[in-house]
Amino acid sequence: MNVDDCKRAAAHLAASLVKPGMVVGLGTGSTAAFMIERLGERVAKEGLKIQAIPTSEESTKLARAAGIPITTFADHSVVDITIDGADEVERKTLHLIKGLGAALLREKIVAQASRRFVVIVDVTKPVDQLGQRVPVPVEVVPFGYEATAARLEAMGAKVIRPRRHLTGELLTTDNGNRILDCAFGPIDDVQALAARLDGTVGVVEHGLFPNMATDVLVATEREVEQWAP
Amino acid sequence: MNVDDCKRAAAHLAASLVKPGMVVGLGTGSTAAFMIERLGERVAKEGLKIQAIPTSEESTKLARAAGIPITTFADHSVVDITIDGADEVERKTLHLIKGLGAALLREKIVAQASRRFVVIVDVTKPVDQLGQRVPVPVEVVPFGYEATAARLEAMGAKVIRPRRHLTGELLTTDNGNRILDCAFGPIDDVQALAARLDGTVGVVEHGLFPNMATDVLVATEREVEQWAP
Repeated sequence: MNVDDCKRAAAHLAASLVKPGMVVGLGTGSTAAFMIERLGERVAKEGLKIQAIPTSEESTKLARAAGIPITTFADHSVVDITIDGADEVERKTLHLIKGLGAALLREKIVAQASRRFVVIVDVTKPVDQLGQRVPVPVEVVPFGYEATAARLEAMGAKVIRPRRHLTGELLTTDNGNRILDCAFGPIDDVQALAARLDGTVGVVEHGLFPNMATDVLVATEREVEQWAP
Repeated sequence: MNVDDCKRAAAHLAASLVKPGMVVGLGTGSTAAFMIERLGERVAKEGLKIQAIPTSEESTKLARAAGIPITTFADHSVVDITIDGADEVERKTLHLIKGLGAALLREKIVAQASRRFVVIVDVTKPVDQLGQRVPVPVEVVPFGYEATAARLEAMGAKVIRPRRHLTGELLTTDNGNRILDCAFGPIDDVQALAARLDGTVGVVEHGLFPNMATDVLVATEREVEQWAP
């Protein structure tokens, strides 16, 4: 199996966890896209009745195209299950780094409101320690983001790159903010760093998701492994 | 002196702390407006050379009208002095509640980046315990704000009112967010509540400013008292 086959396998297993009548949080990114496609098939073929809360404009479009009915938090303040990808999963703890797709804020809001938060990844995503391979995306208010970046640097971020579009301009999130990709290196205490980022003025949200995943589905070349905390 | 005279007296004393060459953070609200007016007079009459970072669109307009040159964090990541009002000041600790003017996020970013943070209030603002008279304004992401409100309620907020314009529609801040006014009642541990709000997904920032004021100027009917932590 290539990486896309792996992603599709995990996405299909996750989609099978969705039961009739559920409110379903739809993640963002390439793996989540396979899951949305699969849920759309179940809606069309099995007549599966669900309502979805997407975590980005992108996933909203995919869900509409797949024929999945969309709802909002105005009608449902609790989500039964959310299925999303991740950029790194720490093997022992199942802490996550998310947000390379720039949708971390809505993803976190939906995950936090969910009874079950299922993370689907391919075999390249598990790591022994978060921060090994990817930076922590930090969503910041545009106003004064230079001062916020200086504070993140003082907290130990070795490299801070403001996320840009391919065209070179600074990226704006769905919420009108900027993303600073902060390379901290391997992170010894994920919860402590998360609390410090939470307490940093100008930081709207960050890509550390400690203790949030209830299930992690890891697609290897042979099978889909199911991990639980 | 009436309340406006008190506000003006504190504002004038605060404006006298500004020295030539300084980068000055300009607060938002009725008391800050007197200070901006006074700084404009000093620029015009004394030729005072300063550059200002305003904390709201409203203060930007006032500063422009007063002839005060405006700069941004792109050019200055440190602010020499910021002068702003507050909605409550706790007598013993000088912890503040701010944000009834809906500008708390930029106010906090500017205050945090400031060497000196001077708070100017009239005699109605000091209290023995924060939360006695006013709610804590909490700036939240519009997406999923109903779920965020439910979490704030679970944290002990007795009444949560989404801030509205006089016309009745939900208020949108300068940063595109909503304000939930959360009445917690008298707050026993301001720093603990601040940390819990910081850690709440969907909360962009809140109106608790613990340990930030370096000077509080309180205008009574007879004089302006100067308090320091």
